[in-house]
Amino acid sequence: MMKKIDGWLTAPKGFLAGGVTAGLKKSGKPDLAVVYSEVPAACGAVFTQNKMCAAPVLVDREVAQGDFARGIVVNSGCANACTGLKGLADAREMQSFAAGLWQVKLNEIFVCSTGVIGAFMPMDIVRKGIKNAIEVMGRDGGLACAEAIQTTDTFIKHSAYTTVIGGKEVTVAGIAKGAGMIAPNMATMLTFLTTDGAVEPALLKRMVKRVADRSYNMVVVDGDTSTNDSMIVLANGLAGNDRITDENHPDYEAFYEALQAVAVDLAKMIAHDGEGATKFLEVNVVGAKNFAEAKTAAMAIAKSPLVKTAFFGEDPNWGRIVCAAGYSGAEMIADKVNLSIGGIRLVEKGLNCNVALETLKPIMAEKEISMEIDLAAGEAKATVWTCDFSYEYVKINGEYHT
Amino acid sequence: MMKKIDGWLTAPKGFLAGGVTAGLKKSGKPDLAVVYSEVPAACGAVFTQNKMCAAPVLVDREVAQGDFARGIVVNSGCANACTGLKGLADAREMQSFAAGLWQVKLNEIFVCSTGVIGAFMPMDIVRKGIKNAIEVMGRDGGLACAEAIQTTDTFIKHSAYTTVIGGKEVTVAGIAKGAGMIAPNMATMLTFLTTDGAVEPALLKRMVKRVADRSYNMVVVDGDTSTNDSMIVLANGLAGNDRITDENHPDYEAFYEALQAVAVDLAKMIAHDGEGATKFLEVNVVGAKNFAEAKTAAMAIAKSPLVKTAFFGEDPNWGRIVCAAGYSGAEMIADKVNLSIGGIRLVEKGLNCNVALETLKPIMAEKEISMEIDLAAGEAKATVWTCDFSYEYVKINGEYHT
Repeated sequence: MMKKIDGWLTAPKGFLAGGVTAGLKKSGKPDLAVVYSEVPAACGAVFTQNKMCAAPVLVDREVAQGDFARGIVVNSGCANACTGLKGLADAREMQSFAAGLWQVKLNEIFVCSTGVIGAFMPMDIVRKGIKNAIEVMGRDGGLACAEAIQTTDTFIKHSAYTTVIGGKEVTVAGIAKGAGMIAPNMATMLTFLTTDGAVEPALLKRMVKRVADRSYNMVVVDGDTSTNDSMIVLANGLAGNDRITDENHPDYEAFYEALQAVAVDLAKMIAHDGEGATKFLEVNVVGAKNFAEAKTAAMAIAKSPLVKTAFFGEDPNWGRIVCAAGYSGAEMIADKVNLSIGGIRLVEKGLNCNVALETLKPIMAEKEISMEIDLAAGEAKATVWTCDFSYEYVKINGEYHT
Repeated sequence: MMKKIDGWLTAPKGFLAGGVTAGLKKSGKPDLAVVYSEVPAACGAVFTQNKMCAAPVLVDREVAQGDFARGIVVNSGCANACTGLKGLADAREMQSFAAGLWQVKLNEIFVCSTGVIGAFMPMDIVRKGIKNAIEVMGRDGGLACAEAIQTTDTFIKHSAYTTVIGGKEVTVAGIAKGAGMIAPNMATMLTFLTTDGAVEPALLKRMVKRVADRSYNMVVVDGDTSTNDSMIVLANGLAGNDRITDENHPDYEAFYEALQAVAVDLAKMIAHDGEGATKFLEVNVVGAKNFAEAKTAAMAIAKSPLVKTAFFGEDPNWGRIVCAAGYSGAEMIADKVNLSIGGIRLVEKGLNCNVALETLKPIMAEKEISMEIDLAAGEAKATVWTCDFSYEYVKINGEYHT
């Protein structure tokens, strides 16, 4: 029933979006975006766990406690992080300025920033940008909105699905930015999802956390968690489906499936666009004691610079994969471990299968490579998406100058 | 009283050492080393926590439970890891073969291996090598021994100190290998310390753990913990000092100081020799809630690819350092954090000090750079040593082919 469509944040009913060049980026590229729901939308959000979180995250944590929100204001070019009380006042002013123009309540507006850490927001430019973006926003502003949240991304990340819930067509759409958990001196993974599905706010908040844990939280580029990471979901109910009230509601799974489909698409795009990435890697851990340990082992493999550089070099260096699982802390039975790359078994019961290098060469040359390790310690599994580690990563992050 | 000297493992009284080319390395370089004490030596050791630990580590864990040992047999070129029951039998045979030649008990001999993971030991070559090494070992074999344990190291790591304990001169010496927690498809940090100090075996075991926690466990190159990491200390008592029995013994601190001095020297050399390193970095965390959190924050900074590539690029990108501390999980007061690089304050109470780039340029150009971050959450501190992350790291680990 669920169907992938080509649409932006405005694909669901009742959402407007826009993006403009305010002048925050030296490049002159679009840097101010807005998303707006014509009616109050149930909201849910998750944010960075970084203790040095940016000012807008502090503001948004308050907004996310409310049931409903109306809009999101986003700037790129300045992260408003490590900016103290002045930064907090600036984030609040972005919020109140947009709320005033939209004639909605202060705590119905989310604010997000991404860009240089430690610099203050040039508020004259920001105010002018918000005003312009709100003026131009519309049903056709989805692409402009997505463009204005990018920093070092090499492609624009968006995804949308429709599904039928209780006889009504419900649409879920999303955009994301991020190429590295932190881009060069920039910060942030930002992602926004809109839907016209009708859902109880308290339930949406739980669903957002569940979706994040199964999508964005399963992606790692360099292991660095930014100061600004934010995921915000707005559900305005205009599809007219019977409101989904809890996990036992008959439509819960269909709605969850659509949210997750959008989030997983975007999460994978972030790994594809990892700084300097030449390959997309899928790390499957099976046979773990529980999900947490499966994820721990998969993350250890996905973060290992030795594993990532081996894939860059197209070297089927399975010892590094097994070794990373071994030091991850996850329980494993060393002499029962199995490992496959691209479907070819390389390690069986902890021993080298001595597969010929020629057999593996075409698999290692692929642009998307999947591996699976069986820890032989239980029934749980997890999948993490990452990318390889290239000269280009060092170049992007080493040659960039503050 | 403590004095640095130029000596090898044979600098302490009663130790013999040797190294030969057995033929395990394709390069024809020395690959089989032995260390021997003329009298039983109190022993202490710590090993990798990796669940995929190598066969010799399994054997050595048993040896380390005993009070006294006589020797260590080490090969490079083959890690004897992921080799199952056959690998374990091979490690035991190395042990029994050496014990037979030395006419000592089986469980008085440590065995260590470093090299390729997943390959079986060519035991004919190993036996011949052990026999030759034992034949040539002597008081002048320290350098040859150190050479034979190297893999991708770019220099030989050794350190020695003498100190006076209860009127007797006590010598502590050590060697180490390791350039990356794992070298390309090789495994292992190995380090061996010898001393003629007299110490109760049970106390030595505690001291070795304490020393490791304050030296090798404070070094990180790429965050990958190998399958073979081993630290072994032999103390044969031939210096004739009053035997140190416990932590309250008047000579405890002096002896500990000498052990730690050797271990810290070697640990720093490992960071200096990190794969592809162009800079040695010292990360000091102060103002942490406790030592564990101080270390956690320092390790997060030292492991961050973004921090490491920034130093490679000589970019004083302080946002990445503060950000890494922020996501480490250590408690910190965001608006009280201070950060200095090379003694220059860059962040004060969480805010950018706007130091001119020209001021920082000469500091960032140094080959050894120290940084200090104050988390403002307590009184504890920790220091971690690491290196930068260069194109060369990617080259070494990506272009190497299995």
